[in-house]
Parts: sequence; C-alpha cells; structure tokens
Amino acid sequence: MNFASDNTAPTAPEIMAALVAANQGSAMPYGNDDLMVQVRARIRQIFEAPEAAVYLVATGTAANALSCAILVQPWQAVFCHRNAHIEEDECGAPEFYTGGSKLVLVDGDHARMTPPALDRAIGFTGRGGVHNVQRGMVSITNATEHGTVYDPKAVKALADVARSYGLPVHMDGARFTNALITAGCTPAELTWKAGVDVLSFGGTKNGCMGVEAVVIFDPARAAEFEFRRKRAGHLISKHRYLSAQMLAYLTDDLWLRLAHQANAAARHLSNGLSAIPGATLVHPTEANAVFAAWPRSGHRRAEGGGARYYLWPGDQSLSGPDDEPLAARLVCSWSTTEADVEGILALIRG
Amino acid sequence: MNFASDNTAPTAPEIMAALVAANQGSAMPYGNDDLMVQVRARIRQIFEAPEAAVYLVATGTAANALSCAILVQPWQAVFCHRNAHIEEDECGAPEFYTGGSKLVLVDGDHARMTPPALDRAIGFTGRGGVHNVQRGMVSITNATEHGTVYDPKAVKALADVARSYGLPVHMDGARFTNALITAGCTPAELTWKAGVDVLSFGGTKNGCMGVEAVVIFDPARAAEFEFRRKRAGHLISKHRYLSAQMLAYLTDDLWLRLAHQANAAARHLSNGLSAIPGATLVHPTEANAVFAAWPRSGHRRAEGGGARYYLWPGDQSLSGPDDEPLAARLVCSWSTTEADVEGILALIRG
Amino acid sequence: MNFASDNTAPTAPEIMAALVAANQGSAMPYGNDDLMVQVRARIRQIFEAPEAAVYLVATGTAANALSCAILVQPWQAVFCHRNAHIEEDECGAPEFYTGGSKLVLVDGDHARMTPPALDRAIGFTGRGGVHNVQRGMVSITNATEHGTVYDPKAVKALADVARSYGLPVHMDGARFTNALITAGCTPAELTWKAGVDVLSFGGTKNGCMGVEAVVIFDPARAAEFEFRRKRAGHLISKHRYLSAQMLAYLTDDLWLRLAHQANAAARHLSNGLSAIPGATLVHPTEANAVFAAWPRSGHRRAEGGGARYYLWPGDQSLSGPDDEPLAARLVCSWSTTEADVEGILALIRG
Amino acid sequence: MNFASDNTAPTAPEIMAALVAANQGSAMPYGNDDLMVQVRARIRQIFEAPEAAVYLVATGTAANALSCAILVQPWQAVFCHRNAHIEEDECGAPEFYTGGSKLVLVDGDHARMTPPALDRAIGFTGRGGVHNVQRGMVSITNATEHGTVYDPKAVKALADVARSYGLPVHMDGARFTNALITAGCTPAELTWKAGVDVLSFGGTKNGCMGVEAVVIFDPARAAEFEFRRKRAGHLISKHRYLSAQMLAYLTDDLWLRLAHQANAAARHLSNGLSAIPGATLVHPTEANAVFAAWPRSGHRRAEGGGARYYLWPGDQSLSGPDDEPLAARLVCSWSTTEADVEGILALIRG
Repeated sequence: MNFASDNTAPTAPEIMAALVAANQGSAMPYGNDDLMVQVRARIRQIFEAPEAAVYLVATGTAANALSCAILVQPWQAVFCHRNAHIEEDECGAPEFYTGGSKLVLVDGDHARMTPPALDRAIGFTGRGGVHNVQRGMVSITNATEHGTVYDPKAVKALADVARSYGLPVHMDGARFTNALITAGCTPAELTWKAGVDVLSFGGTKNGCMGVEAVVIFDPARAAEFEFRRKRAGHLISKHRYLSAQMLAYLTDDLWLRLAHQANAAARHLSNGLSAIPGATLVHPTEANAVFAAWPRSGHRRAEGGGARYYLWPGDQSLSGPDDEPLAARLVCSWSTTEADVEGILALIRG
Repeated sequence: MNFASDNTAPTAPEIMAALVAANQGSAMPYGNDDLMVQVRARIRQIFEAPEAAVYLVATGTAANALSCAILVQPWQAVFCHRNAHIEEDECGAPEFYTGGSKLVLVDGDHARMTPPALDRAIGFTGRGGVHNVQRGMVSITNATEHGTVYDPKAVKALADVARSYGLPVHMDGARFTNALITAGCTPAELTWKAGVDVLSFGGTKNGCMGVEAVVIFDPARAAEFEFRRKRAGHLISKHRYLSAQMLAYLTDDLWLRLAHQANAAARHLSNGLSAIPGATLVHPTEANAVFAAWPRSGHRRAEGGGARYYLWPGDQSLSGPDDEPLAARLVCSWSTTEADVEGILALIRG
Repeated sequence: MNFASDNTAPTAPEIMAALVAANQGSAMPYGNDDLMVQVRARIRQIFEAPEAAVYLVATGTAANALSCAILVQPWQAVFCHRNAHIEEDECGAPEFYTGGSKLVLVDGDHARMTPPALDRAIGFTGRGGVHNVQRGMVSITNATEHGTVYDPKAVKALADVARSYGLPVHMDGARFTNALITAGCTPAELTWKAGVDVLSFGGTKNGCMGVEAVVIFDPARAAEFEFRRKRAGHLISKHRYLSAQMLAYLTDDLWLRLAHQANAAARHLSNGLSAIPGATLVHPTEANAVFAAWPRSGHRRAEGGGARYYLWPGDQSLSGPDDEPLAARLVCSWSTTEADVEGILALIRG
Repeated sequence: MNFASDNTAPTAPEIMAALVAANQGSAMPYGNDDLMVQVRARIRQIFEAPEAAVYLVATGTAANALSCAILVQPWQAVFCHRNAHIEEDECGAPEFYTGGSKLVLVDGDHARMTPPALDRAIGFTGRGGVHNVQRGMVSITNATEHGTVYDPKAVKALADVARSYGLPVHMDGARFTNALITAGCTPAELTWKAGVDVLSFGGTKNGCMGVEAVVIFDPARAAEFEFRRKRAGHLISKHRYLSAQMLAYLTDDLWLRLAHQANAAARHLSNGLSAIPGATLVHPTEANAVFAAWPRSGHRRAEGGGARYYLWPGDQSLSGPDDEPLAARLVCSWSTTEADVEGILALIRG
C-alpha cells in the first residue's frame, strides 16, 4: 500500500527482461547502439513525426531542463503554472540549465494554466524593453502536478497564446501517457498537432527503471541539444540500457497498458474515497494521482495499517481533532493492485 | 574483439542479477532506499572512512563536475593534466557546473602531472590579485587517460603541492579500481591517506550498468552536494537501481576481480604487441588500456578481421605506406577474453 | 519639465567640480587611489560602521546583483517584492550574477512587503528538502519602486522575519537618501541597526554622474565581492573618478541636500496634483516619485506643453475619452525646480 | 614618472571639457541621449561601416566579455594568445559572461599568435564530436599585452585561419589606437577589412575617463548584445557622460593624437633604454609599452628616485646582485612627458 509516489514502484517485468536481454556482448556507447536506431524509429512512428529528433536521458529533470535550455535565452522568461514540476520540484534546474532564465508563474485551478492567465502573464512581461526579462517560452505540465489533464483542445488553446507572441512550447510529459489515456487521442494530437515543439516523454514514472525521451519535433532546434546533454553529464555511456528500456516500453503497447492500469487504480481509489463520509476530492482525478481530504481519524488508521502517502501540503499533522479533514496526495502506479486500493480504503473507512 | 572502450562492455552478470533481485515491491526514491544504507556503510568500510559522505550518480561526468563544483569557486582555477578527462572529454562540464572556473593545464609524460609542473602552474596563477583567476583545486585522474597509474606516493606528492597552497584535491577515479589493482595498496592509501578530499569512484567502466559514487572524505564539504546534484537532474528517482549495482559491485570483491581481469587482459595484449616487429608502446601499460603503435599493414589486417579500436590520435589514416607505424588505443574491460586478445594479436601479426 | 526619471538629471555641480579637481596627475587604478581611502572612511563614519567593507561600482544593477551574489547560493531564493527593481528592471541581472537563483515574489501594497507576506513566502519555500529551491536571502528596496518608504521599524520587522529563518538581508538603496530623509533617522538606524547586512547605497539617481557604493556591514561577507566585481567587469580602472564623485557627494551634506530637494519637489507636485479635480494619488508620495491618475485631457495638455513622464503602466493610451483617468509616474530629482512643478501642474489643470 | 599603467593617467582635458559641457539640462538615459546619435554616426564613419552596431560600456573587461558572449556558445572555445588580456587579466570574465566557455591558449612570441599555432589549436579542438568543447571564436588582442602590434596583414592571416573553420573573430582593442598608429592604416583595414567581426574599441587607456565602444560590424550579431549588456549591469543610466567622452575622443583626431604621443614616448624610452649598457629589450616596442631588462642597480636607483613601474614578472626582487638584469614593464600614456622619460632614463643610467 505505497501511494507515496509512482517512483516507488518497481520496473515493469517486460522492461527488466529487456535489460537482461540487452546484456549480451559489446555495444557502441553514447547513443550509438543499435537499439537506439529502433527507439528513434519507433518514437517517430508513434508520434507521426518522421523528422523529429529523439534523445534519451535518465531523469525527468534532465529532460525538462535541457528542453528549456534549447528553447529560451538566459534573459528570457519561461511561462509555466505556479505548481509546475519545473517550478516546484527541480531545485532550480531550469534556472541552472538556461543560464538564469526567470520562471514567470501563471495561475489556474487544479494546476492547469488558463489561456487568459497565460496571455496576461506573457503580455505583462518584457514590455519595458531591455530593462525587463523578455518573453521566452511556455512549458505545459501534462498530466499536471495535481493529477489533472489537458486535452488536445486545452493544449492548443495555450499553444495558440504562445504562438501569438512567437513563443515555442514545451510539454513536461513525465506523466504523458497517463494524460494520453485520459485524453483519448493520439500522441500527435496531444503534442505537435496542438502546437507543442518539444516533449519530455516520461518512462520512469510509468514502469521504466530510469529513462525519459526528449522529442524535438522541429529538428532545427536539436542542434545544440547534444552538446548541452553531454556537457551536463547526461549522455549515458552504456546507452544501450536506456534504449532497451524505451524500446520495451513502446513495444506491444506496454506503455499504454501500464498507464491504463495506473489511471484505473487512481479512479478506483478516487471513487472509493469520494464515497467515504466526510471525504472530498481536492482536485479532479484525471490521471494517476488522487488529491483528497478526509477526517484525521482515517489518516491515523491508514498510517497505523501501513499505508504510505504524503499529507499535501506537508505541514499538516496527524495530531489534532479526529474529525478535522486533512488533505493528502495518493499516487497510483502501474504496480498498484486492487488489493492495495481496497486495503487503504478499508483502513480509512475504519 | 571490441577494444574501442570499456564502455562497450556489458554489465557484469552479478550486477545484472542484483538489479533483477532489487526489482521487488516498492522502495523509497531519491536515495532513501534501504540498499543505499548498505552502500554507504560498505564504502565507508572499504575506504576506512566512517565519516565520509557518499552519493551515487549515473555518469562519470556528473561525478567529476559535481565534485569540482563543491571544491572551487567560479573565479578559481582547477589544476589538472592537459589530457585529463575533465579537460578533454566532458564538453566543458566542469566549466558548466562550477559556474565558469578555468581549467589550468599541467604537463607531464603519459598523462601524469609531475609535482614540479603542478607547483609551477599553481604558483603562476593568481599572482596578480583580483585581476587573475585564483587558485582553486587540483584534480588527479587515476588511472590516467593514457593508461598509466599514480601510486600512493605519487598522489601524495601532488597533494602535498596542493596543500602547500591550501588547495583541496579531487581524484577522478572513473578507473579507480584499475589503478588500485596496479598500485597494490588499500583504497584509503590511494585516496584520503594520500591527501585526496573527494573521489569520483567509478563503477560503469568496470562492469556496472551505470553508477559512480562520489566519496567526500570531509563531510563538511558535502553540505551543498545534494542541492547541486538535484539541481543538475542527477538525483535518480528510482535510486534503488543505482544502489543495487554499487552494492553488488562491492560484494565478494567483485569490483577487484573485474578490474584485475581487465588489467590482466591489457597486460597480455601489451606484451603481445611489444613482441611484434615494428611495434612499440606509446605509453606504459599500467591499467586496462594499451597505447601502442605498429605498422599500418597490421592495422589493415586487424580492421579487416573485425577488431574494433581507435587510432589515437584519430586523424591518422589507414591509407598510406604499409610500413608506417600508426598509434592506437585499445581498451580492455572485465569482459575481454583471452581469445579476444589472441585474436587481435594474430590479426596484427598477419 | 522632465519627470521621466531621476536618471535624466545632470550631475550636481559640486560633483562635477570634484571630477575636474581629481583630474590632476597620476593616480593608482582599480580602487587603490588615495581618494578611495577617504571615501571608505567617510562611509564608515556616516554609517557608524568602522568595520564595514566599502566598494564602488558604476551602476545600481551592478551593486544589487553583486550584493545578491555574495549573499545567496545558486539553488536558493531571493525574497523580494513583486515590484522590486531587481525583479522588474534589471533584465534578470540577479539571476545572472547568482548563477540562477530564483526570485520569489512577495506581495504588499505600494511596493512594500508586509512581514506576514514575507513570512508566508519564506515559510512556503524549501519545505520539500532537496527538491525545492532553498531559502536564501531577503532584498528590500528602499525607497520602493512606487515611491514609498520603509522606516527603521518597518525594515526591522522584515529583517526579523528574515533572521527567524537565518537569512541575510540586502537593501537596494538606489534611492536610499530619499528614504532616509523621509524616515528622519540615521543611516545606521535605517540599515544595520534594523538588520540590514549589505546595502546598495545609491549616488547616480541623486546627483552623481554614475557611482554606487556597496556597504557590507559584516566584512566576513566581503571576501568574495572583489573577485565577483572584477570578473563582472565592474572594477573601474580609473577609479579615482568614482571616488571623487562619492566623496563630493558625502561632503558638506550634499547627498542629504540633493535628496531633500527631490523629495520636496515631489511633495509639492503631489500636493498640487491632489488638488486637481478628478486626480487621485495611486501611491502615497513618500520619496521623490509621484504616482497619480488624472483625466486624459490633462495628460494631453501636459504632453502638448512639453512635459515628459511615463504613463504607468505603459500600455495606457492618450487616445480615448477625455474624462477617463490615466495613471502616471513622475519622478523628481535634485534638479527639479519649482518652475518645473508649477509648469506641469498648470498644464494639467488646463 | 608613473609608468605603472596607462590607467594611472588622468583624463585628457578635451574630454573633461566635454563632460562639463554635457552637464546641462536633462537627457534621456540608457543610450537614448542625443550625443549617442552622433557617436554612432562618427564611429560608423571612421570605420567606413555604415551598418555597424555601436554600443558603449565603461570598462574594457565588459566590452571584451560581452563581445565574446555574443560570438560563442557555452560549449565552445575561445582561441586566444596565452598572454591575452582576456586570459590573464579579467579574473575569468569571459567564462562568466559566456556561461562557461573554455579559453584555448595559442602560442607565439611577444604575445602574438602565429597563424600556424592558431590553426593547430583550432584543428586540435572538437575533433571528438560531442565529447569535446567545440570550436567557437578567435580573439586577437591588438596592441598585445607585450606591447607589440598586429598589422592588417597579420590580422588577416589569423582571420583567414578562423574563417577556414567558420569561426568569427573578435579584436580586443583596449589599445586599438596605439596599434593603429603603428600599423599606419585605416581603422577599417585593421578590422573588418582584415576579417574582424566585433571590436572592443578602447577609450579609457588612451585618455578617456572610462568608456569603450563595442563595434559590431555585422549587425545581425547585435541582437542579443543589448540584453546581455543590461543584464550585466553595464547599461549606464546617465549615458550621456559616456557619449560625451567618446564624441570628444573622436573629434579633431584627438584619439589619434593621444595615441601618437603615448607611442612616441614609449619609443623614446625604448631607445634610451637600449642604449644603456647591460640593458636589453624583452619585446619589441611597437605601441605604448616598453618591456626591457637592465641591471638591478638601475632599478634601485629608479625606485629611489620615485619612478613607478612593475617588475615583470612580478616575482623578481630588488634584493640581490647589482649586475643581475631584472625585466620590467613600463607603460607610457598620452600624458607621459619627455621630462618623465628623460627622468627615468637618467635615474637608470645613474
């Protein structure tokens, strides 16, 4: 019953099997392995983007920060939601990689930027000429940090605002497949057809051991990615093990099945929680994370029963009145079982 | 017969088995996994350094660049050999991570700095007060990029020079175990007892899939490492898979056995080459890489027979007079077999 | 009738005379001139800070950004008001100089942070351990960008919040003397006695040609300032001309007289505007800038009559209904005359 | 008798007069002053470059570092002489401004790069693909730090090497006019006609108070200069005082006359020294600096007589045998008089 993060889950067996299978003989390092040729072809096929540049790195923060670094100048702004992962959970990686760009924060319920709020933020920036940080790029987290999803229409609405200012668009898709399942569209529709220029396409949170793809739809923007990746120490020498993961992930729809399982578990959990007296959802459950509040007594029982998750925000305390509702984040993964969900619900119900 | 790099080798079976074994149930992410507790204890034990701070990252460039970043200020110099990996093979990662430090290059045969050359370089730097880049730190690559080794006495001689200026010492030990085998001493003797403050302790080139430890002997210097690692995107979320590699690597002397095999293969190859008419060693073979020159005809036969390695430097050509000697680098790994060595020697001999 | 900025004013005659007087014979460069000895002594005396480190630079942005750079690490936050000069008007200089720190914006009316808002912002930052940007420093702009002033009590209330988190405090005093005149206290009371660690002490906006002092009250923090200044190209070679300005500025209370004149002109203008039908003050007039709104027709007359100032915000237009009030910023300087003030008032009144 | 630096000289009277004259009424700040229009036109005329972008900053380090920043990427190299000012005397400013570029050092007698040495340095860089720092730009210091001069042919020979690799060329012309006088050519011939893309055109060392122009011959490269300048705190608010200096400097050939005087004084000094028994020139005297060695006894007499200059290198001592020659640098400026030169020669002669 570990709902602390999708990062606590193990590697999917198919992916582990692929790693074992890749462990034969020698392979050229640094992305020159044969498997990478297949990965590149597969991602281009899935995204209907035969020209896209495709790179692999080991972490989502690397994928995001490198993506920003090729889209924005140091004196420009990255527009993102106030609760974006790049703002809240990367210890300033975008600032480091971009050489000091400024993240300008955009509002919107449930961690989703609204087009008018984005328009205001961009419009307000860089009006004073050389004295101001300039308009740079837009970054959209999908699924969001609050477990909600932008569908293609919502992505396009934001990208249209970006385009109206001439700005490129990045999508932080650490949980891209969870969003895709919910959006019920094609990968192309959720990305470049909606105006996304560069995608961080996550694998780690959805069953891989540690691999993320960066998909650069306009290959002209790819020129400097390779130097920045190497210079950051993110060019993996025994690269075949990244390739093997990503290839297995994209074979036989594994990526879709894993995200489907995680989303289904979250929906199950969300529905179960909603039915508990005194419990409420804090954000709609649209991907694999549930944000809900319920009475402190239920939290005490859950903790006592061995369930793991984070109170959200973290400064709430299990000490206090029984009835007071405390909010929490519960993240489901591909490995979350029905028994896990039923187990925590039973504990909370008491 | 792949002698292109120790990075072309697969993962040692014991390490792959440990990864498979670690793939059970949930584990806390970001270095909070139980295996990391064992890794930390084991490294402290091996290095006789009960206070050392220990961190894992996925690449050697990350280990080196982060190590530099905690030892040097942006306006200070890193003193290293002209052929150090940090100078030649990291696309400026030290400059990126340190915020623009200057690498000041030190001479010495076979990629080994000499103490007088180091002393001259340090002494020459920062004499002009605020106008100059200041003296910062020393970085020693061991084993070196030319396959030679510093023994504890040689390390201490350099560290003594550094200490005489109050400078800390980093060791790039991407091939630390190869050096250790040759030096025939304890890990402590080759590091902190000889004056090393921070060690990049390599796993990847010696049989791991992708893991390097940073060992910070003076934990006061560790304070900022964690922030810099996260900010660089080098804090791995499913960290148990780094821990599992490193733990298996350090169990039952696996790390020593793997390096021993690689070094033995290199010695075998070096001896065999030396015996070929017209062949000469370019650098002494002290670790797992052989630098030798032999007639072009032998290179043509080796290439024709499927042997892979790099001409070194790379601007030499297989086209030209038969007798002219061409220099090459051949790197052995834990997985290099006697048959590989005999095979390439037979080809070269013709 | 130029109210566009205090930067449009000329150099005070006393200061120009000092420059001419300094133009005799040779003088050691880079801050080793004899005049700088006097400047240092004078600033220490004025601030009752005999240990303070004192440096001169040519611009306020340099003074602020260098001050931040010695107080904060790249992975830490600078807490400042949403309308601070360092946030709005330096094109990201703090991010550049600090190596990518994040400016976390604090609210408060009239460009003044409130202690509770500062406390919330700091408290909210860095709670998630290594994943978040950490708490770094607080920067207070005094006088503010909206022409208001923090008195010693207000500064202390903010510094106390900073201290409760162990954070140092910087004051952007580009208009320090304007604030000091209004606060009616000693320089020490408005700075280190209230908890300020480093002060950007402005000269340029108050009658100098181009000089700002950085006063570092705790000299332990000064160690790296000199390297950062040089490295940034802000160590002036013919430094005597900075020293001469600052020394004249601080002689015979010139600095106080100049700021007094500017503040008095602003008060005069503010009172005059307040008395105009349909006009309102947008912010209280506490230093040398007036923020007021009045009917568009008055703006048209002012412009037609040759008055220069900025509509504030800048996206308002002179085209539109006569009666609609437009907000504007009018900045007075030491050189603003009564005739200037009466002139623009007459134009606006019509 | 101050030969310590051309920075110890005062401001030329014509330039000080222009500053006084500019101190009338209000002027738009930040480069929008009317005088700057004239400066831009004048520099374009002098350099026969009607399209050139022209900017002013207050220091040579700012001019150089900003110039590098617009010509090179962080992962690229700046090729310059081992004794270039940007390498030796700016505390790492190029590294700071470029985001961590590497300065690759080129050899050549008397601080002049030779085309073959430059070719070797460039050719050796970036051969290993993504693993290496890439080829970026060439920077030529003219006059050099050792008082020698590149004539147009020599500049072109270096620029031709740069061009053969597709690299842009910067000239650090802190002492450009001193070089120009010696080269006896037009400003265009010594810059863009010889292949220079961006020039740091110095004023400070040649009689100005503190102003350098950056002349960007290809205006396409100018786009980002303005943002980088502002972000670095090098956009001067009361900019008219930079403009006034530069305009006076370029009026009535003042810049040429000042440099002519300095060069003539150096030649006089150089000839005088050469005639002293036991004295030798260390570098040819081609601009305004003399590098010579003479017996220690002569140095003792010079010092005792109040002459100021630096032993070069600085670690030589006045204590020791009388006859031993010590090397020294003596810099002449526009303000060096015949009496100064005769005075020091008399002292040395004894």
